[in-house]
Amino acid sequence: MLHAVIMAGGSGTRFWPASRRSRPKQFLSLIDGTPLIRTTVERILALVPAERIWIVTAGHTASLARELVPEIPGRNILIEPAGRDTAACAGYAATIISLSDPDAVCLVLPADHIIPDAEALRRALGAGAEHVAEENGLLTFGIRPTRPETGYGYLKIGAAATVRHGHQIHVLDRFVEKPDTRTARRYVDSGVYLWNSGMFAWRAETLLGEIARQLPLLDRGLKAIAEAAGTHREARVLQEIYPTLPRTSVDFGIMEGAQRTWTLPVGFAWSDVGSWAALAEVLPADALGNISRGRITMLDATGNIAISGGPVIAAAGVNDLIIIATPDAVLVVPRSEHQRVKEIVTLLGDAGWEDVL
Amino acid sequence: MLHAVIMAGGSGTRFWPASRRSRPKQFLSLIDGTPLIRTTVERILALVPAERIWIVTAGHTASLARELVPEIPGRNILIEPAGRDTAACAGYAATIISLSDPDAVCLVLPADHIIPDAEALRRALGAGAEHVAEENGLLTFGIRPTRPETGYGYLKIGAAATVRHGHQIHVLDRFVEKPDTRTARRYVDSGVYLWNSGMFAWRAETLLGEIARQLPLLDRGLKAIAEAAGTHREARVLQEIYPTLPRTSVDFGIMEGAQRTWTLPVGFAWSDVGSWAALAEVLPADALGNISRGRITMLDATGNIAISGGPVIAAAGVNDLIIIATPDAVLVVPRSEHQRVKEIVTLLGDAGWEDVL
Repeated sequence: MLHAVIMAGGSGTRFWPASRRSRPKQFLSLIDGTPLIRTTVERILALVPAERIWIVTAGHTASLARELVPEIPGRNILIEPAGRDTAACAGYAATIISLSDPDAVCLVLPADHIIPDAEALRRALGAGAEHVAEENGLLTFGIRPTRPETGYGYLKIGAAATVRHGHQIHVLDRFVEKPDTRTARRYVDSGVYLWNSGMFAWRAETLLGEIARQLPLLDRGLKAIAEAAGTHREARVLQEIYPTLPRTSVDFGIMEGAQRTWTLPVGFAWSDVGSWAALAEVLPADALGNISRGRITMLDATGNIAISGGPVIAAAGVNDLIIIATPDAVLVVPRSEHQRVKEIVTLLGDAGWEDVL
Repeated sequence: MLHAVIMAGGSGTRFWPASRRSRPKQFLSLIDGTPLIRTTVERILALVPAERIWIVTAGHTASLARELVPEIPGRNILIEPAGRDTAACAGYAATIISLSDPDAVCLVLPADHIIPDAEALRRALGAGAEHVAEENGLLTFGIRPTRPETGYGYLKIGAAATVRHGHQIHVLDRFVEKPDTRTARRYVDSGVYLWNSGMFAWRAETLLGEIARQLPLLDRGLKAIAEAAGTHREARVLQEIYPTLPRTSVDFGIMEGAQRTWTLPVGFAWSDVGSWAALAEVLPADALGNISRGRITMLDATGNIAISGGPVIAAAGVNDLIIIATPDAVLVVPRSEHQRVKEIVTLLGDAGWEDVL
C-alpha cells in the first residue's frame, strides 16, 4: 500500500527568531497562518489516508507535531533520538513501515516546503509511486528550474524511460551540489538539469535492500531497531543505536550508488524557503518592494522583508533589510546577508541566552 | 523660601517605542536604570527639601510620578489638564506655590535632562536663586556650547552684572531660535551665545507680575484658578480653564518682553537628549561605535544605537541604525533620520494601533 513519510526533523536555525529549538521552521506559519507541517499533510491527504502518513521528528517536537496534525495516529509519529540526515531518517521509516506492510510503497516528503498547487503535486506523486511499485528502483522528483538559483542542489536527467499519467519519467543521471552562478546558468540553459526537491518514492524493501548493499553500518543499526520494535526494549534500543547511525543523505549516500534510479520532472511552483530572504519567492511585495506580515508601518522604505510574530514593526528610511520581531527577540540584517542568521544563533548560544534559542 | 518646580508634562513621542502616552520620556530609564524624573529630583534634594519640590505633569501620568518619586508629598504633584507650554506651566506652579508662600523663590527645571555633575548644578542653581531673591527679575541658566549644535535654541549674553559664589551673572540680551549650522558655528565662535537649557529662577511674584503685565489672558486664568484653590470648585475650575490658557513659552512669551532678565552661564555637561540619536552624547560606544543597552548581539555592525526594553536584539551587517525594541513594538531607522520617529508615531495613530501609542 501507499504510505507517506514526512521528514520533520530539521532544526531550522535560519528562521531565528521565529524558529526556536522548541519550534523549528516546519512548525511555523510562515505564509498563510497554517504551520508548514500541517499544510504538507493536508496537501497529500487526498492521495494517502492519515493512517498511512508517518511523521519523523525529534523527541522534543513530537508533541507539537501531534497537536498540529491530530489526524495522524500517535503511533505514526516516529521519534529520531538524534538527527542523522535523510538516509537514516528514510531508512528508519521504511524499517518500521515494513513491519506491518512488507509491500509498502513510500513517498518521502520534507515537512517544510511550499507547493501552492497541491493537485499537481498529488498527480506527480501518484505517478512516481506507481512507477516504483511496478519498476522498483529509487525515484526522485525534480523541479524544472525557473532561474539560475545557487541555493539549491541539482540533478541531471538521463534517458527517457516511460510516461505515466502524462509524466515523462527519466533515468536519473546524477546529483550535483549547489553550483556557482555561472554553472547554475549553464544548468538552466541546458534543459537537462532539475532542482533537487528532496521528495522521493520507492518500495520500502528496495530502499532497505540498497542500504544493506551500500551502507552496512546503517543496515545493522536498522535491523537491531526492527528486532526490538514492539518489545519492552524498543525505546532503549532506539535511544542507544539511532545516535550512532552513519550520517549521510539519501541523495549522495544511497541514490548515487544505487542500481536503478529514476527522476520525474515536475513544473509546478516550489520553494524550500531556506531563509528569510527566500520568502520573497512566495510572499507578495507591495509597490515599493516591501514584504510584510503582521502589523508593519513603513515610511520611505523599500525592498524590506518585515515579519512580526506580535510586536508592531515601524521602519523609516531603510532599504533591503530583513526585520523580524517576536515578543522576546528581534533580528535586523540586510537581505543580501541572510545567511548570517546561523552565525547569529551561534553567537546567542555563546552568550548563554538559552531562553531565546 | 526656595522651591523647585519640575516640569514633567512632555509627551515624548521622539522616544517611541520606549516612550508611550502612558510613560513619556521623563519617566523612562534611558541611561542608568533610574527614571529621568527621579534623577532630576535626586540631583536637587541637597538644595531643596522634598516638601518644597513640585512636579507639574499630566493627569494620566500623575500616579506614575507619585510612584517613581514617593518622597514628594502628594499635594505637590500639580496636574495640568492639558499641555499649554511652559509659560502656563510655570505660571500655574507660581500661582499655587504663592498661596502658601508669597515670598517663594522658584527654580524651574525640565524633568528629562541629563546633567552628570549634580554638585555643579546645585552650586549654579543656588547662585541663580540667591540672585533673583535679592535683585528680582527673571533668570535663565545658559550652557556654554561645546559644538555648533543645531538642535538647541541659544541665548545671547548681555553686560556682566555681578558675581555670586564664583558665577558671573549677566544681563540677558535675547533668545534665538534653533540656528542653521553656519549660524550655530558663528554663535559658538563668538563666545557670547549659550545653549538655552530651559532652567530658570525667579521670585514667584516677579513671574506673576510679568504675566499680569504681558499676558492678560494667562493672568486672568491663573487668578481664577487661584481663587478656586482649596475649595470644592478647584478641580472643576482647573479642568475648565487650564485647556484655554494661551499656549506660549517662558522664553519668548515672558522673558523676551520682561523688564529685568538675567542669565547665568554654566560649563557643566548637559544634554536634553531630545532624540534616540542624542543618546550618543551621553552613552559610551564600543570600539565599533555601537551603543547598546540590554541584551544586544552585533556582528559586523558599526555605529548603531541598539536599545532594548526586554527582547534580545541581534543585528548583522548593518551600520548607523537606531534599533529600539520593546516586547510589543520595534523601531528601525537610520541615525541620520532620527527626527522621523514623530512621523512614525503619527502613522501608527492613523493605523489605529492605539495599544502601542
